[in-house]
Amino acid sequence: MVTLAHCQALDARDPLAFLHASFAKPQEDTIYLDGNSVGAMPADAPDRVHALLTQGWRDARRRGWSYFDWLEKPWLLGQALSHLLGARPHDVIFSDNTSVNLFKLLAYAWKINPQRPVIVSERYNFPTDIYIAQGLAHFLDGQAQLRLIDHPDELSAALGPDVGVVYLSHVDYRSSYRWPMRQTSQAVNACGALVFWDLSHAAGAIPVELQADGADFAVGCGYKYLCGGPGAPAWLYVHPHHQEKDWPVIAGWMGHEDIFAFAPNYAPSAGVRRHLTGSPSILANQAMSAAADLWKQVKPADLGWKHQSLSELLVDLLRERCAHLGVTVTSPLDYAQRGGHLTFRHPGAGSVTEALLALGVVSSFRKPDSIRFGLSPLYLSHADIWTAVDRLVQVLETKVWKEPRFAKVSV
Amino acid sequence: MVTLAHCQALDARDPLAFLHASFAKPQEDTIYLDGNSVGAMPADAPDRVHALLTQGWRDARRRGWSYFDWLEKPWLLGQALSHLLGARPHDVIFSDNTSVNLFKLLAYAWKINPQRPVIVSERYNFPTDIYIAQGLAHFLDGQAQLRLIDHPDELSAALGPDVGVVYLSHVDYRSSYRWPMRQTSQAVNACGALVFWDLSHAAGAIPVELQADGADFAVGCGYKYLCGGPGAPAWLYVHPHHQEKDWPVIAGWMGHEDIFAFAPNYAPSAGVRRHLTGSPSILANQAMSAAADLWKQVKPADLGWKHQSLSELLVDLLRERCAHLGVTVTSPLDYAQRGGHLTFRHPGAGSVTEALLALGVVSSFRKPDSIRFGLSPLYLSHADIWTAVDRLVQVLETKVWKEPRFAKVSV
Repeated sequence: MVTLAHCQALDARDPLAFLHASFAKPQEDTIYLDGNSVGAMPADAPDRVHALLTQGWRDARRRGWSYFDWLEKPWLLGQALSHLLGARPHDVIFSDNTSVNLFKLLAYAWKINPQRPVIVSERYNFPTDIYIAQGLAHFLDGQAQLRLIDHPDELSAALGPDVGVVYLSHVDYRSSYRWPMRQTSQAVNACGALVFWDLSHAAGAIPVELQADGADFAVGCGYKYLCGGPGAPAWLYVHPHHQEKDWPVIAGWMGHEDIFAFAPNYAPSAGVRRHLTGSPSILANQAMSAAADLWKQVKPADLGWKHQSLSELLVDLLRERCAHLGVTVTSPLDYAQRGGHLTFRHPGAGSVTEALLALGVVSSFRKPDSIRFGLSPLYLSHADIWTAVDRLVQVLETKVWKEPRFAKVSV
Repeated sequence: MVTLAHCQALDARDPLAFLHASFAKPQEDTIYLDGNSVGAMPADAPDRVHALLTQGWRDARRRGWSYFDWLEKPWLLGQALSHLLGARPHDVIFSDNTSVNLFKLLAYAWKINPQRPVIVSERYNFPTDIYIAQGLAHFLDGQAQLRLIDHPDELSAALGPDVGVVYLSHVDYRSSYRWPMRQTSQAVNACGALVFWDLSHAAGAIPVELQADGADFAVGCGYKYLCGGPGAPAWLYVHPHHQEKDWPVIAGWMGHEDIFAFAPNYAPSAGVRRHLTGSPSILANQAMSAAADLWKQVKPADLGWKHQSLSELLVDLLRERCAHLGVTVTSPLDYAQRGGHLTFRHPGAGSVTEALLALGVVSSFRKPDSIRFGLSPLYLSHADIWTAVDRLVQVLETKVWKEPRFAKVSV
């Protein structure tokens, strides 16, 4: 049996424990297992944002664009994250939101080989990803076509000489199934297509190796495991081989080769920066910079150890303590096939999630019967996992819950 | 001769004077004439953003999406501005940045009549606008074509049965020339094309009548006269006739008809909301809400009176006091043909702008010899204009300047 003492022993050798104090504690002390939706706030984010508002907006106003690093933030933030993605520092930028980045890179990827019109994806991919692909196909009136598979096993059968792009979420937002990036990229490239990964449920939770594992394109959300704040800018990556194949579809001022020239004609910047659009959100990037300074201190191997340790601990605890109470782990049991969160089933999942919340454990419910625990290695300890499962046992045994304590607030 | 007393008398009957105190004063007290680049900060913006960071991000985290109005902000902000645009409250939304909104609506507008492939614009339109159109034409490999005119007089000759969209800045960012919206829209519509206006240098400075004046599409910047903060979200408008003609090109989750259904297929929301993309920036929208609560208090007629009064005062003062010192007003002298800012020439414009800055007057220099004074009716008084011109006279007579006082700050 796993004991609390065992969890505490793991915490004693946690290489990322020094980061826990860098995150703000909520007014109600909670165990926050929903970083797959919105990550916790770095403690100094409010001070950084306040400094920007006063020294930047209030005092410098327009002059802030030249006196501060506002225009450089998109790649400074990308650099701060790049080592956790297995990308060169200048191959990642922050820009827009995930949907817009999905659109920009899917359009760009498709146009590299428009004579191979098919985009392959999963029917049960995150709806945003599917909608963006359906929208592009609709806009292009059949010049681009979407082919959806129902299961990862069907990928090889869906590949063929008409496929230009394979467009997948690295980690499934429901089951946490993680595609094997290297083997998949190789199989896709071998058939002459490009592979485009959405890493929203991976980046910041597990280290990845985009360049070594053959990812052609990737995007990810900024506000989940990356802790950039609600609605934070998203990131995008383009493999060096593809960075200068074409113009970006949204040929924005910030992606021009010389943004201060006010040149009459568009000319794309070198590298991945051409996918910048218009003015970045300076406030949102400032909040993100608080997290970026934490990522810089995280070694990929430490992130990998910590996440695997938390995730395997959770599986062990759920199987030991909750199986007889009706809990079934539905995420893959092989750790290499799991992403940031862990999903399990219980017939009363909706009310269990509410009851956990009343006990200070924040998780997320997915209809009809699934609960997800998001496992951020930056601010969770092994003891947190032990306590969360302990409270889950209480709930499953006694069914205690109460209403959430926040009231809806208007503008 | 215009006197300071005359300016003070105008200020005494300024219907928007009550708003001046709602804006934060910079540490160095300045006369800020660069609101055409970044508008001044509403005084309560830092407190609002801090509340969002602590009550929202820190304490509520993911639950903030349901406990606060984060997801409704895109149209609550649009409603707050709509009366100044002559739009129905639900026909304006805030989303993304200006470049992305230009792309979304230009692609949408073009696709309404793709058998009319030509997009007409001005060669000297703001570079962002041109780049976006060039990028769309490039992406569509000649299915969309760009036809650029060199002067407003050439528009009628450029119209023809091949023209699908006329795509113009309502106010020129250099000269402040203002297109006559109604006559232009009528002429464009009469030839069977649609008209798309960029109002970045108009909205928040002068009232417009988008629906009555026949605008089919419009976008504008959030951080200039609208005072939403550096890199604020931009707005977009679609005429009711066109709102449901097609899918948006970026078929985003937030533009789905039921964002909480996680439906497997895209279906656009009713109305203009379909042009929302992914998660809005909650921080940036919160800063914008401080300005939105000010716009709600502004009557279009008051905005119009105040701006015209400031703009005509400035022309009078420049002609009376600066003409003999080498200043020539290059904006149109007929007020109806001018937008938010006023532009004048001086051979030493670059150093004059720097010298004005040292005296606390913030304006902007455009190569080779132009100075722009942006005239925000929300926080400028007539006495401010008098003082600014008085300091300009000092500079032109004595040529005093010093270096800017801010140091570059990194992440």
